[in-house]
Amino acid sequence: MPIGIFDSGVGGLTAMKEIIKELPDENILYLGDTARVPYGTRSPEIVSIYSLQNAQFLMSKGIKLLVVACNTSSSVSLDLLMEKFSIPVIGVVEPGAKAAVAMTKLKRIAIIGTETTINSKSYERVIKSIDSSIKVFGIACPLFVPLVEEGWLEGEVVTLTAEKYLSTLRNNNIDTLVLGCTHYPMIKDTIADIIKIPLIDSARETAKEVKRILRDNDMLCKRKASRRLPPTPPLEKEGEPLREFFVTDSPERFARAGRRFLGYEILNISKIDLDIL
Amino acid sequence: MPIGIFDSGVGGLTAMKEIIKELPDENILYLGDTARVPYGTRSPEIVSIYSLQNAQFLMSKGIKLLVVACNTSSSVSLDLLMEKFSIPVIGVVEPGAKAAVAMTKLKRIAIIGTETTINSKSYERVIKSIDSSIKVFGIACPLFVPLVEEGWLEGEVVTLTAEKYLSTLRNNNIDTLVLGCTHYPMIKDTIADIIKIPLIDSARETAKEVKRILRDNDMLCKRKASRRLPPTPPLEKEGEPLREFFVTDSPERFARAGRRFLGYEILNISKIDLDIL
Repeated sequence: MPIGIFDSGVGGLTAMKEIIKELPDENILYLGDTARVPYGTRSPEIVSIYSLQNAQFLMSKGIKLLVVACNTSSSVSLDLLMEKFSIPVIGVVEPGAKAAVAMTKLKRIAIIGTETTINSKSYERVIKSIDSSIKVFGIACPLFVPLVEEGWLEGEVVTLTAEKYLSTLRNNNIDTLVLGCTHYPMIKDTIADIIKIPLIDSARETAKEVKRILRDNDMLCKRKASRRLPPTPPLEKEGEPLREFFVTDSPERFARAGRRFLGYEILNISKIDLDIL
Repeated sequence: MPIGIFDSGVGGLTAMKEIIKELPDENILYLGDTARVPYGTRSPEIVSIYSLQNAQFLMSKGIKLLVVACNTSSSVSLDLLMEKFSIPVIGVVEPGAKAAVAMTKLKRIAIIGTETTINSKSYERVIKSIDSSIKVFGIACPLFVPLVEEGWLEGEVVTLTAEKYLSTLRNNNIDTLVLGCTHYPMIKDTIADIIKIPLIDSARETAKEVKRILRDNDMLCKRKASRRLPPTPPLEKEGEPLREFFVTDSPERFARAGRRFLGYEILNISKIDLDIL
């Protein structure tokens, strides 16, 4: 049975890429809710409704584990999804928050994310539950997602935008910054140049957590370990892991942006209608 | 009976503002589909479904005329809406296109808009139907909407972004530029500084068209002309025109951004669920 991943759009492909690196043999179904992206400026109630519909679609396809690759969904709807479904449900917030706690020495962590993620204080809750003495600074960066979607990953515009958002973090003695949105790893070099402290990539931490949970529950895919699979098969061949993509709108646009995220051509994309459409 | 206006979000408020200027006595209902904004990157099929639902909601409230204030909706779903409803349905594309034809001397017009508006070639079709010898240049500017929504209306980021998009228009002998998105009037000074040719504001042209149609069909509101009404009543008082706002998500966010568009506090906002939610 495959792993199911959903995101509001293409951003979750950074999480998928990390999961493929950790678990190259696993079958994966990816759903991008491109008809209703972005989630980061929407209310928690609406994001929860959308998240539930996405999860229900993937459940109907038969998955063994659900990854909520969207930080906004993870921030406001993870409890709902965990309660609703009996398979393991993994969000991106907790793995990222835990890694930040392990990293910080000065006990001062910054989180950057969408408006709804930052307003939800989801990272802060997890961090404080581990060590209540840590100080957490949240900065919403709403323009990062459209910049990444537009493919402006470097250059003056993204640099100036990042400087404007991140300048408030200076002189705060912060020693750890969490990329609390799956789009942000695409511009991490620009962010690192400005902020000059270690970055935590929630997507990467989540991939490690997915591997740990599948292994601990003896749910890993049982393929012959001897056969080395290419990490990024453009088309499924017999015996190779299945990688299937679903979107709620504009498969061409998803393919175009997705190639930048995964680094290879995405061919097997289906447009689906959630109940809603 | 009120005029109904819908847009994907707050952008259509620039059209509403112009309609209030032309017709200060009219009652107006405004619907912003904030749960599914932006429309400009979505497929024509999805935008048409959303537009129809928006129109149906306003029709259910009893309106005498429908303004499709979203350029993307106007570009891809106006025919559908005109066919479906018996009241006058006015989009923003035709008034803007006609004004551009009247303005251009060199017969070279540029249109800036969202990806879906530009891909639809809606402006080009109207312009060519009037004068097929006019050359039309379309430029999609996807980052303008998120910049305006973020309130970054001036400064380096918006200037550099505009330069990047508009540089392709230089040396093209264009003498007229159409702001083919209702968000763009908010950054028209930046655009004008860069491009240095006359700008056509589709929202303003649409307001004139609305007035003409209501007058020609004897559908104007019959209030006493003697009583001078404030153009922007924050709260309806008896006898004053009704201005009611509906959104599909985040009324607070709409109020915050909307104030920048209308120039005053919006108080009477209701959150509604379209069939879809």
